[in-house]
Amino acid sequence: MTHPFLAACRREPVDRVPVWMMRQAGRYQPSYRAVREKVSFLELCRSPELIAQVTTAPIEELGFDAAILFSDILLALPAMGLELSFESGEKGKGNGGPRIANPVRTGVDVRALRIPDPLRDLPFVLEGIRLTRRALRGRVPLIGFVGGPFTVGSYAVEGTGGGFERLKALLYGDPPAAHELFEKLTRSALVQLEAQVSAGVEAAQVFESWLGELAREDLEEFSFPYLARIAAAIRRMGVPSILFSTGTTSHLERLAALGYDVLSVDWRIPIAEARARALGVAVQGNLDAALLLGPKGNAVARAVEMVRAAGPEPGYIFNLGHGVQVGTPPETVRAVVEAVHAFTWG
Amino acid sequence: MTHPFLAACRREPVDRVPVWMMRQAGRYQPSYRAVREKVSFLELCRSPELIAQVTTAPIEELGFDAAILFSDILLALPAMGLELSFESGEKGKGNGGPRIANPVRTGVDVRALRIPDPLRDLPFVLEGIRLTRRALRGRVPLIGFVGGPFTVGSYAVEGTGGGFERLKALLYGDPPAAHELFEKLTRSALVQLEAQVSAGVEAAQVFESWLGELAREDLEEFSFPYLARIAAAIRRMGVPSILFSTGTTSHLERLAALGYDVLSVDWRIPIAEARARALGVAVQGNLDAALLLGPKGNAVARAVEMVRAAGPEPGYIFNLGHGVQVGTPPETVRAVVEAVHAFTWG
Repeated sequence: MTHPFLAACRREPVDRVPVWMMRQAGRYQPSYRAVREKVSFLELCRSPELIAQVTTAPIEELGFDAAILFSDILLALPAMGLELSFESGEKGKGNGGPRIANPVRTGVDVRALRIPDPLRDLPFVLEGIRLTRRALRGRVPLIGFVGGPFTVGSYAVEGTGGGFERLKALLYGDPPAAHELFEKLTRSALVQLEAQVSAGVEAAQVFESWLGELAREDLEEFSFPYLARIAAAIRRMGVPSILFSTGTTSHLERLAALGYDVLSVDWRIPIAEARARALGVAVQGNLDAALLLGPKGNAVARAVEMVRAAGPEPGYIFNLGHGVQVGTPPETVRAVVEAVHAFTWG
Repeated sequence: MTHPFLAACRREPVDRVPVWMMRQAGRYQPSYRAVREKVSFLELCRSPELIAQVTTAPIEELGFDAAILFSDILLALPAMGLELSFESGEKGKGNGGPRIANPVRTGVDVRALRIPDPLRDLPFVLEGIRLTRRALRGRVPLIGFVGGPFTVGSYAVEGTGGGFERLKALLYGDPPAAHELFEKLTRSALVQLEAQVSAGVEAAQVFESWLGELAREDLEEFSFPYLARIAAAIRRMGVPSILFSTGTTSHLERLAALGYDVLSVDWRIPIAEARARALGVAVQGNLDAALLLGPKGNAVARAVEMVRAAGPEPGYIFNLGHGVQVGTPPETVRAVVEAVHAFTWG
């Protein structure tokens, strides 16, 4: 029998609404913090055994319907030639912002970027996938992921998170170099996705988190063609594809036409409106993660309201509008998962 | 004759598209940097003579169709009982983020907040308005402004910019206290607007910059009623009102019904779509400010494309999607202003 999460991705009927949460493996969990007392963030990302342990824990502890590979969208950058570190990523600390010591600033920098070979450069990710599949024992599907070209490009060019001026300077000042950068990041995403699917992931999410930074004309020129190629490639790999972005609600119809099976939407749009506008695709989202920091009863009530508003048509996956926040009580997460599972239209 | 900016606010026909830019007085200008070499950010905000000088400079240097009072949305907080400072706000430096030493965290903190008396607490703003009107000599209208209750509340509760967890914790954990906070910030906004209009401002913009942080249900409960009261009050004052927000494109129809004359929209929505959806109001926006950091020819071409896309119907004001960025060449700003002015439908 198809698992409800995979069925919902394909807009097939399900017995109950499937639920998972971005960053469901993270510092809000005591079990995750215990692992991170012993290893740094990058050590964790590079240990197949710990990847399997951390990826599987929220399934066992909280009852989610899908596991998402514990990894990071920037892990391939060192193999491309960029020196990556995480501020306060050491043992026992939260992983702060990424830092790139030699960011991409010119066309020459772009040309120097290499395409990674996942078998050689990211073997720990692939072995992590294999061990996770074994640990999950078919209970729930495993989602793999990559960062979208614009989002990874923003870190590669800015050297940190949070700013977009330098990337935009490249876009407007040297469009051919920007296209070459996105071309290379697209190829990097494609080889990673192929390797992840070969190793066993059963769905693939593209984290294009910062897409809302661009105006429509720039999305059409610098982002959508690359995202469409990635969608088509995932389709050929035979697994469902999910596109996650934020700040993009005015582009929903256009995003729905890129070829992904599922659009993951942020909290900025009522879920019913997102479903009505994202025709022909499943929709994933979009509870404000901050609700889970407040009273449990309120979070549960809002989650149930959202499932009702999403409606009975096949093709809905419950998720947050962005990741679980540090400090979220696991008990609230569990209560929300249970309430979504208990929901019926009867 | 009504000035084109005021005519556009009221959706009356204009001879040319009026243009101004948020943060048109700022560090990208050599004249502004020269002033800030001598005084801190707060000293500037508290000097009527310098307010008039800095507010007027972009009109004379760059040809904008409206001046916007140089001030800050948080200036009333000290009179409410909060200790405000600006990180690296000293002489010769950019004003960094605001800091509040005793942020609002509980219902008790909220009850202790006082409503400011602008005549007593912000006389420098009112005198700055009078001196600016004199310096402008009727060439262009002067826009006054306040911060919206949610946006000012986010600084008051978080104590800094950039986070919303504590404010949301108050919203979800103690809704009556949150309402009392927004009620007080609304009253504070209203007395400031009344004083600004009495002193001579000819239009009023509400900066509700962080509205996109809230989901629709929370906007309906915690924001829209307050914003509607402010709109109605400005209408009684007899000047046009503008509501600025970002990340709110999926709420445009709802925002258009709040009672403002003009909606200022961010770069995340094509301007034609914004105009089609924001029925019954004028629209202001929405060029990506980062375009002005790139080649001048490209910025000008995109600005002209935008004016064309906005269409010939009365009620359009050219602006950016957010403020002018540091490092923007004034020459590019001037070229964009001239190109918008030169545009005709002939």
